[in-house]
Amino acid sequence: MPSTTKIPVGILGATGTVGQRFVQLLEDHPWFEVAWLAASERSAGLAYQDAAKWKLTTSIPDRIAHMKVSAAAPDGAPRVIFAALDAALAQDLEPKFAAAGHVLITNSSAFRMHPDVPLIIPEINDDQLALIDRQEWRKSKGRGCIVTNSNCSIMGLAIALAPLAEQFGLEKVFAVTMQAISGAGYPGVASLDILGNVIPYIAKEEEKMEAEAKKLLGKMHNDQLQLADFAISAQCNRVAVEDGHTESVSIKLRKPASAEQIIAAWRGCKSNVAQLNLPSAPAQVIHYDERIDRPQPRLDIHRGKGMTTTIGRLRACSIFDWKFTVLSHNTVRGAAGAAILNAELLKVKGYLEA
Amino acid sequence: MPSTTKIPVGILGATGTVGQRFVQLLEDHPWFEVAWLAASERSAGLAYQDAAKWKLTTSIPDRIAHMKVSAAAPDGAPRVIFAALDAALAQDLEPKFAAAGHVLITNSSAFRMHPDVPLIIPEINDDQLALIDRQEWRKSKGRGCIVTNSNCSIMGLAIALAPLAEQFGLEKVFAVTMQAISGAGYPGVASLDILGNVIPYIAKEEEKMEAEAKKLLGKMHNDQLQLADFAISAQCNRVAVEDGHTESVSIKLRKPASAEQIIAAWRGCKSNVAQLNLPSAPAQVIHYDERIDRPQPRLDIHRGKGMTTTIGRLRACSIFDWKFTVLSHNTVRGAAGAAILNAELLKVKGYLEA
Amino acid sequence: MPSTTKIPVGILGATGTVGQRFVQLLEDHPWFEVAWLAASERSAGLAYQDAAKWKLTTSIPDRIAHMKVSAAAPDGAPRVIFAALDAALAQDLEPKFAAAGHVLITNSSAFRMHPDVPLIIPEINDDQLALIDRQEWRKSKGRGCIVTNSNCSIMGLAIALAPLAEQFGLEKVFAVTMQAISGAGYPGVASLDILGNVIPYIAKEEEKMEAEAKKLLGKMHNDQLQLADFAISAQCNRVAVEDGHTESVSIKLRKPASAEQIIAAWRGCKSNVAQLNLPSAPAQVIHYDERIDRPQPRLDIHRGKGMTTTIGRLRACSIFDWKFTVLSHNTVRGAAGAAILNAELLKVKGYLEA
Amino acid sequence: MPSTTKIPVGILGATGTVGQRFVQLLEDHPWFEVAWLAASERSAGLAYQDAAKWKLTTSIPDRIAHMKVSAAAPDGAPRVIFAALDAALAQDLEPKFAAAGHVLITNSSAFRMHPDVPLIIPEINDDQLALIDRQEWRKSKGRGCIVTNSNCSIMGLAIALAPLAEQFGLEKVFAVTMQAISGAGYPGVASLDILGNVIPYIAKEEEKMEAEAKKLLGKMHNDQLQLADFAISAQCNRVAVEDGHTESVSIKLRKPASAEQIIAAWRGCKSNVAQLNLPSAPAQVIHYDERIDRPQPRLDIHRGKGMTTTIGRLRACSIFDWKFTVLSHNTVRGAAGAAILNAELLKVKGYLEA
Repeated sequence: MPSTTKIPVGILGATGTVGQRFVQLLEDHPWFEVAWLAASERSAGLAYQDAAKWKLTTSIPDRIAHMKVSAAAPDGAPRVIFAALDAALAQDLEPKFAAAGHVLITNSSAFRMHPDVPLIIPEINDDQLALIDRQEWRKSKGRGCIVTNSNCSIMGLAIALAPLAEQFGLEKVFAVTMQAISGAGYPGVASLDILGNVIPYIAKEEEKMEAEAKKLLGKMHNDQLQLADFAISAQCNRVAVEDGHTESVSIKLRKPASAEQIIAAWRGCKSNVAQLNLPSAPAQVIHYDERIDRPQPRLDIHRGKGMTTTIGRLRACSIFDWKFTVLSHNTVRGAAGAAILNAELLKVKGYLEA
Repeated sequence: MPSTTKIPVGILGATGTVGQRFVQLLEDHPWFEVAWLAASERSAGLAYQDAAKWKLTTSIPDRIAHMKVSAAAPDGAPRVIFAALDAALAQDLEPKFAAAGHVLITNSSAFRMHPDVPLIIPEINDDQLALIDRQEWRKSKGRGCIVTNSNCSIMGLAIALAPLAEQFGLEKVFAVTMQAISGAGYPGVASLDILGNVIPYIAKEEEKMEAEAKKLLGKMHNDQLQLADFAISAQCNRVAVEDGHTESVSIKLRKPASAEQIIAAWRGCKSNVAQLNLPSAPAQVIHYDERIDRPQPRLDIHRGKGMTTTIGRLRACSIFDWKFTVLSHNTVRGAAGAAILNAELLKVKGYLEA
Repeated sequence: MPSTTKIPVGILGATGTVGQRFVQLLEDHPWFEVAWLAASERSAGLAYQDAAKWKLTTSIPDRIAHMKVSAAAPDGAPRVIFAALDAALAQDLEPKFAAAGHVLITNSSAFRMHPDVPLIIPEINDDQLALIDRQEWRKSKGRGCIVTNSNCSIMGLAIALAPLAEQFGLEKVFAVTMQAISGAGYPGVASLDILGNVIPYIAKEEEKMEAEAKKLLGKMHNDQLQLADFAISAQCNRVAVEDGHTESVSIKLRKPASAEQIIAAWRGCKSNVAQLNLPSAPAQVIHYDERIDRPQPRLDIHRGKGMTTTIGRLRACSIFDWKFTVLSHNTVRGAAGAAILNAELLKVKGYLEA
Repeated sequence: MPSTTKIPVGILGATGTVGQRFVQLLEDHPWFEVAWLAASERSAGLAYQDAAKWKLTTSIPDRIAHMKVSAAAPDGAPRVIFAALDAALAQDLEPKFAAAGHVLITNSSAFRMHPDVPLIIPEINDDQLALIDRQEWRKSKGRGCIVTNSNCSIMGLAIALAPLAEQFGLEKVFAVTMQAISGAGYPGVASLDILGNVIPYIAKEEEKMEAEAKKLLGKMHNDQLQLADFAISAQCNRVAVEDGHTESVSIKLRKPASAEQIIAAWRGCKSNVAQLNLPSAPAQVIHYDERIDRPQPRLDIHRGKGMTTTIGRLRACSIFDWKFTVLSHNTVRGAAGAAILNAELLKVKGYLEA
């Protein structure tokens, strides 16, 4: 029996890889309770366990397994919706939900770069929430809105860059990713394509990474977001890793900083929202690992229940200032976990109330 | 029965991963014939098939399987020696062989950066052979010498950069590698370390890559080598690939060049030694692949019997000028095949004659 | 320019994993020349290189790359057709081709167990060719027919069992397979399903393996095939291997046999068709490897250009008589290579003539 | 600060793969507290974090990270010792600890088949504890003893067989394993040996599996253990899986049983020690999964915190009676977790008191 004191939430795109993470991470959530699951026509009407090819290493929660999958339409859906739709579908569906008065907290890329839509990492840019009030949906009677989190490839890197941008100024960033297969969904990457292989291409990923980086590190001025002013060049590769994006990064700062100062900036990285005690916020935003061969996805991805960003190998760069490696869990910190953290922030800030 | 018209050669470090490649690639070589195999104390006296844990997908050639492994000392060794020793061992042993009058064509890093030792890629810098005459060993009665090839991580990249440096001038290079496990030898990388994982560290690899790049692209002036004048920053990662190093590269050129001009420079890349018809030289030095998701190690590593460098994904870089992906077979083009090609060049140039 | 002296052949289902192997193995075939490629509606009309997602480590032959893909219908197709269709499609299409007078040499399962259709491994049961004359299609004017090869999971095992059945009688066989991903086609197995995993199920595979084994080892009596009289129990698993099915086998023989006798039976295994010098027949039908940890798919799959069956680890079984491990290349020996060998046999036996 | 109310325990062989699991699983154990860590000479004197190459996905517990590693000798060690030594070392060291009055709960194979040493799976054969009183060490003043758990390859299978043996009688068992790399320790299996490969050999594994199976399912009669009377034939393979041994099994029972009865026997499998509420005992000894393609190591290994055995694919065998697939976590249920569960049983039964 659902507790009546929790906020009922829905998951739009509940059967996919990220949808499954939503289900998993929302189980036993202290504030939210899954009350509605929606997916494509093909799944609508089925029990969730029959509609979803569950690929996580924990079992489908019993209550969810038997829940009937709804059609992907606003009728009957709870006010608060987590979304994990393909961009093309999201482009069409998400505004319909927002227009119908839903608070749509989405992992899709469709509206991330819209000037009125916040692209939130609570620890570093919660001030973007102010953009919500500029949304037409929010001004209408239903007071719906859309809030986004970033692409998985830029999430951990943006977190790594934020304290450096703050303290030393950021001028240039080179980043090469080695991304996990779970980021491509299911069935996603064919095994013949990735077993013992590297694929040096992920459609639209480099473009998203470069564009979103500047919005994530942007600043609010007079209720408008100014994109951050630094150059970023990204190259994205797929590797035979299940979960966790590893990135080799070189940066040029605006002010000189020693290795000690940079590590201190990371270790001292204080979340903007630390005092809010959001349930999904990791105790440690960034963990700097001094071991010579870390971070590694297989070993370090679970830190902070997948929400901590791990950095290692800070060393001088012979062209820019510094080189390092950053690791982030792509379906937790980089997708479902990020959206849930955003929802927690929205709740505390009063945006979930009708 | 060994043909009497071929040049007898020895392999120093014959049981390791690269030693095995030497055995494989020299089988049926038109000019050379393996006449001597040497390895560590532990292997000396054993039949090769008992001493080597053969890990290649072709069988040990019959004649070699039963050949007795010699101790790693110059006595009784043929004049021409291919070497695949650990750097520490090479530091000690290689000069002994050179002093004893052997022509040592080595894959080891020990003497690569020595000012009198050529670091050869025949297609691009055969002029470095002139350094041989500066070697003390060469001046002595035995007329021994040491000739090196580069580290596997820089080989394919140097080949990719050479025609660009020539035509447009090279100013800056960022390179992030995703390197195969075969580069670490056997047993090398533990499976628990790499299955479903990335290791963002390979000991001394970044240093070698950066240093050797400048020697490989250097120019001879008055019998001395001038290192090439460009900046390079490398980051090296190990991935779960058997053979083939894939690298994400960004470059800044000194003169403007369009994508068409760059691809034309690669496709038109003419080996310095094309007219010599060296048996191991690939018909195509560089293959540019226009497919959006190539090169990939599993699919493209065998091009030109592992000697062709494959490049793909040329596109504009938002910081430097251009980004691309380069792939090279690390134990063929980047090790044993490179040394054999060097030996072929030495033969044609008359250096193998006593 | 196609040589006029070779027999023109077509490939039905040319774009799939097995279809690609047909293209690869038929390149430079001394007797056959690919003159026609057919695939689904979606591919018809495209150049082959645009229709096929080529996944082999050799390049698409130039001549084939630009060949136009035809619709999957008999019109305009050469008389000799290699087929690699899904069973459902084959059930419908293959009889149409046979009825139209084509000699259909197929890797599909649709007609393998039909009493009038030979299930051929030339080395062990070429006498089944006599079944062709019982086919209605053969009796009609066009003299079409269907000839099949077995499922990849039973191919190598049947070859291993044949000389033992012949010499010692075969009573019972337990077999557990560890099958490569290439057997599932492309995209086939999702990487999220197999990376670091085992899937203990392949649809219909155990049933095919058990049924086909008895036909493969059957004997002709009065122009009818009698299924072999032994019991077989199979369990099929998918593992993270690219090519090569490895199988753990236990057997009970009808007559006592020592390990030496069994190995001698394998090593002495003489192909029924050795004297025909079929181009794709391996010099060695069976290779017995005495090394304690062999055969292994990565290392042993290429023996005999993928056509030799490798066996190892013969040791006493505490329930039956003997245990061993057998390895066979699933897309060469177990699919395209098998069909081509069958075609060669048909040619020599005069079945390809109109 | 260690709690004074927990029983201090030591780990002998604390730096290896299984030793690390002991550390991980004993963290926050309600009854035991790690007070002593021992390893080889090379490690003695170092902090644990410097001596152990930690390869688990959780961090080293802080308290343990800085604990000094002791030499592998009884002096100063707590009475209760968990051991994870190589068999050769265990052969020598374990009796010394037992003679010195230690209760040695070991994962090593050295004494598993000793007639006076219990080979315990608490759920199925806790009666073997009575053997302890036959041990000489136990009779001496220190009252030391040795208690073992089985090899990881037979653990899950023995649990699967126990209720069937009990209810229907067991006559014959065929088992083919596909074992994880973690079972070989660290560095263990070389990546070049297992990436995209199967190794059909694990030294001494088949012998252990067959011998230990009969002791595990044996029965106590007059204070002596009678080995179980059934035949077992095992074949052991290594596959590219991190954790979890998957096994394809065929069984012949003494009494007829339907699939429903067998599944009921598994689902109803009641631990012999259920009423003891041992902290590491899984709520469910056996989970039968009806999905057609389960169990799979990547997805099912964590059930019951790695202590539940998962079975699937029960179907008729054409030679014996039934075929099925069994999965067990090799370093938890099959090693460290098993030993800890044994220790919990020993505590409740009073064997840990001096």
